[in-house]
Amino acid sequence: MELGVGGSIPPCCTKKMNKEKKLKPSKELPLGFVDRQEKELLIRDFIISNIKEVMTKYGFQYLETPSFEYTDSIGKFLPDKDRPDQGVFSFKDEKNWLSLRYDLTAPLARYVAKNYLELPKPFKRYQLGTVWRNEKPGPGRYREFLQFDADYIGTKNLQADAELCVLISEILEKCGLDKRDYTVRISSRELINKLLEQLKIKSKDQISTTLRALDKIDRLGWNEVKKLLGEGRKDKSGDYTKGANLKSDQIKIIENALNTPNPDLKDVLKIVKIFQDYNFNNYTFAPYVIRGLEYYTGPIFEVNLNFEVKNSKGQAIQFGSIGGGGRYDNLVNRFGNFDCPATGISIGIDRLVFALMQKKDFKIKTTRPVVICVFDNKNTKEYIDILKKLRASNISSEIYPGEGKLKKQMEYANKIGSPAVILYGDNEIKTGKATLKNLKSGQEISMEIESLIDEVKKII
Amino acid sequence: MELGVGGSIPPCCTKKMNKEKKLKPSKELPLGFVDRQEKELLIRDFIISNIKEVMTKYGFQYLETPSFEYTDSIGKFLPDKDRPDQGVFSFKDEKNWLSLRYDLTAPLARYVAKNYLELPKPFKRYQLGTVWRNEKPGPGRYREFLQFDADYIGTKNLQADAELCVLISEILEKCGLDKRDYTVRISSRELINKLLEQLKIKSKDQISTTLRALDKIDRLGWNEVKKLLGEGRKDKSGDYTKGANLKSDQIKIIENALNTPNPDLKDVLKIVKIFQDYNFNNYTFAPYVIRGLEYYTGPIFEVNLNFEVKNSKGQAIQFGSIGGGGRYDNLVNRFGNFDCPATGISIGIDRLVFALMQKKDFKIKTTRPVVICVFDNKNTKEYIDILKKLRASNISSEIYPGEGKLKKQMEYANKIGSPAVILYGDNEIKTGKATLKNLKSGQEISMEIESLIDEVKKII
Repeated sequence: MELGVGGSIPPCCTKKMNKEKKLKPSKELPLGFVDRQEKELLIRDFIISNIKEVMTKYGFQYLETPSFEYTDSIGKFLPDKDRPDQGVFSFKDEKNWLSLRYDLTAPLARYVAKNYLELPKPFKRYQLGTVWRNEKPGPGRYREFLQFDADYIGTKNLQADAELCVLISEILEKCGLDKRDYTVRISSRELINKLLEQLKIKSKDQISTTLRALDKIDRLGWNEVKKLLGEGRKDKSGDYTKGANLKSDQIKIIENALNTPNPDLKDVLKIVKIFQDYNFNNYTFAPYVIRGLEYYTGPIFEVNLNFEVKNSKGQAIQFGSIGGGGRYDNLVNRFGNFDCPATGISIGIDRLVFALMQKKDFKIKTTRPVVICVFDNKNTKEYIDILKKLRASNISSEIYPGEGKLKKQMEYANKIGSPAVILYGDNEIKTGKATLKNLKSGQEISMEIESLIDEVKKII
Repeated sequence: MELGVGGSIPPCCTKKMNKEKKLKPSKELPLGFVDRQEKELLIRDFIISNIKEVMTKYGFQYLETPSFEYTDSIGKFLPDKDRPDQGVFSFKDEKNWLSLRYDLTAPLARYVAKNYLELPKPFKRYQLGTVWRNEKPGPGRYREFLQFDADYIGTKNLQADAELCVLISEILEKCGLDKRDYTVRISSRELINKLLEQLKIKSKDQISTTLRALDKIDRLGWNEVKKLLGEGRKDKSGDYTKGANLKSDQIKIIENALNTPNPDLKDVLKIVKIFQDYNFNNYTFAPYVIRGLEYYTGPIFEVNLNFEVKNSKGQAIQFGSIGGGGRYDNLVNRFGNFDCPATGISIGIDRLVFALMQKKDFKIKTTRPVVICVFDNKNTKEYIDILKKLRASNISSEIYPGEGKLKKQMEYANKIGSPAVILYGDNEIKTGKATLKNLKSGQEISMEIESLIDEVKKII
């Protein structure tokens, strides 16, 4: 069956859809997708430009892999297998299955395997890109998000792991956070591996269900996670999630381990030593940090915000991490026999934008144009002459682009948040003087065209 | 059937794929997708920052719609219906068909319909975003590309159409093109509509096949297009494209019309008058410009480069347009009764990057880090102290991130194109002097740590 393949929506389907909606297409977006407005986008640009600056300073190469990969190339290492409809967006080509990337790490492993001989060892790269998750849609649960990743490929040197935490903190501080605003948590998969040995569970399914359960301690609390470690748990929506089916003595072992963290993690201790050399102390050891992705093999990191974040209803929410990562020494090996230990970290850019928008004292400048009003189309050349002068001085400006009369033009200027309008009617053209109206103060001044630029600059 | 839905690749498929490929996943990319390297990405960033500057100056709002839309919302207005597997990437949700956007205009129409009451009239917005086409893959035929769009919604004022051509030329010149490097071609769908009246064809299919055929004059030449207007044409690959089945006297009418363009297009004449007011003269009237998309209703524009562009084999190629657009007065109306005449223009950013990379005298600066060599891990703190000083002066730098000895470290530094390495071994630490080795000249100098920053700055 070729449904959903190659955009070949059978005409019967679209007709039916149209009929149900009275022949008009939907104006709505699918759940999990959003339109983004200027303020949000400007904050995002601000974050991205900080990231690029820090990445250049730290000596990372800039790389971009495409949105699609062969499905088998990127495998499936998603943290959340609880739902039948979860996972990736996949499409069948003429011959092959393609998937939209669900992270930037799996495609990087493919890239490294493909270009292994040509790459420097180690290879440091960063990428910015959208990733997609075909999760159960719901409010606040997005199915596409923008991610930043920095990775070291081909090194076991823990200097790399340490520096990832240092660089992420430099990025956050460049974005306006101070040290109290965030914490880097570190732990290690070693801890979990030892724990799993103690628990004597070997079934891959049971292991991954256990990991996913532990990863939710922050969000659900220990009592709920206990259910996920046991038989299972029903969430608020009534959805039932099967548990790992651990016995109560096994769950007790986990509880103890979390309360008395093993201080004997050599890798973590080494990283902490390097943190001290960097004079970086904004971290904490957090054994309950799991990071759901299955490919991690060693030290793992997570970055959490410490200030209050509210949802769209104004309620304070548990915001969770804005980033994290860890060591994944075996991922490139999937493609053959490569000696490619690796470590990396990500930031969820949209989440950081969301948090920054709520941070007190965080401001971003938006620019709205000065509007030159149109009295008569025969004077277009005069309007354009003023426009060109304003733009030559890099002043955001436009000739009113619609067809309404002056009243409508003023409404338009107010609606777009314009700082000022310029009035240059027949009489004014005769005297060579224009009127500048400040839309905030309401004040009007008349002046020679030559002085206009300077006066506009005072207002904007 | 639920194949391809929700990423639920049946285990049988992945197993089979793995078996065929000896259990190793593919390292290759699907055809039509590419990895992009730093130089290309930096040129792209340069273009994008120019676009944003010009857009702000021209008073456009920055907006972003998501990658996915309901399939029926964005409709299907693609120029190229020749192939059975062409079109969009579509996907069935739990209930609905979703598609990856194939342009930025159809989603904008949906956005405007959704937010009609709140938007200023007219509404000017710009967007940067990836679009996807599920076309027959082949060399140089990409299935995802980055596009820039600027649109005026809710105005019939031809000032808008004229300004789109002016702003695109300002962007191109900011990117380093001069007036001889590009031409804006303008025409109008009016011309085509009159022609279609003359031809007396009314079948929607025949009309769109005729439009698509005419759109290829630049690429295929008149003689091949004649075949597409008639019975059909076989391309080099042997693929057969059905023609519009026009009779020979109809084809003759088209040929005459193209050779004796109707000078009576009022809209185009008005736009040309506004061009003169802007002192913009880098345009030409080009009746053979069609712009394939079916939603255009009035003036149409296309931007072509005039310098030679070569393909990856070094052969000069017909590069075609890097952008274009036109008036589409009825697109928003699909969603109901909206008074929304509109006009817009796009640039294919990847195509512009490709062209700029080939332009003589176009340079982009890439930055590679200075490498601090590692003699002994016990001195990590000393290396980090130097590193912090370099980075505090905004110098791209790193401590060698691998595990090799000095010879490997030098190979690494050369491989990544580092400008210099810093050698700070036990002896050097004792004397407080480091050695700076310039990797271009090979010259080595020894100096106090305090002078290091200044010396490094001279090299990079």
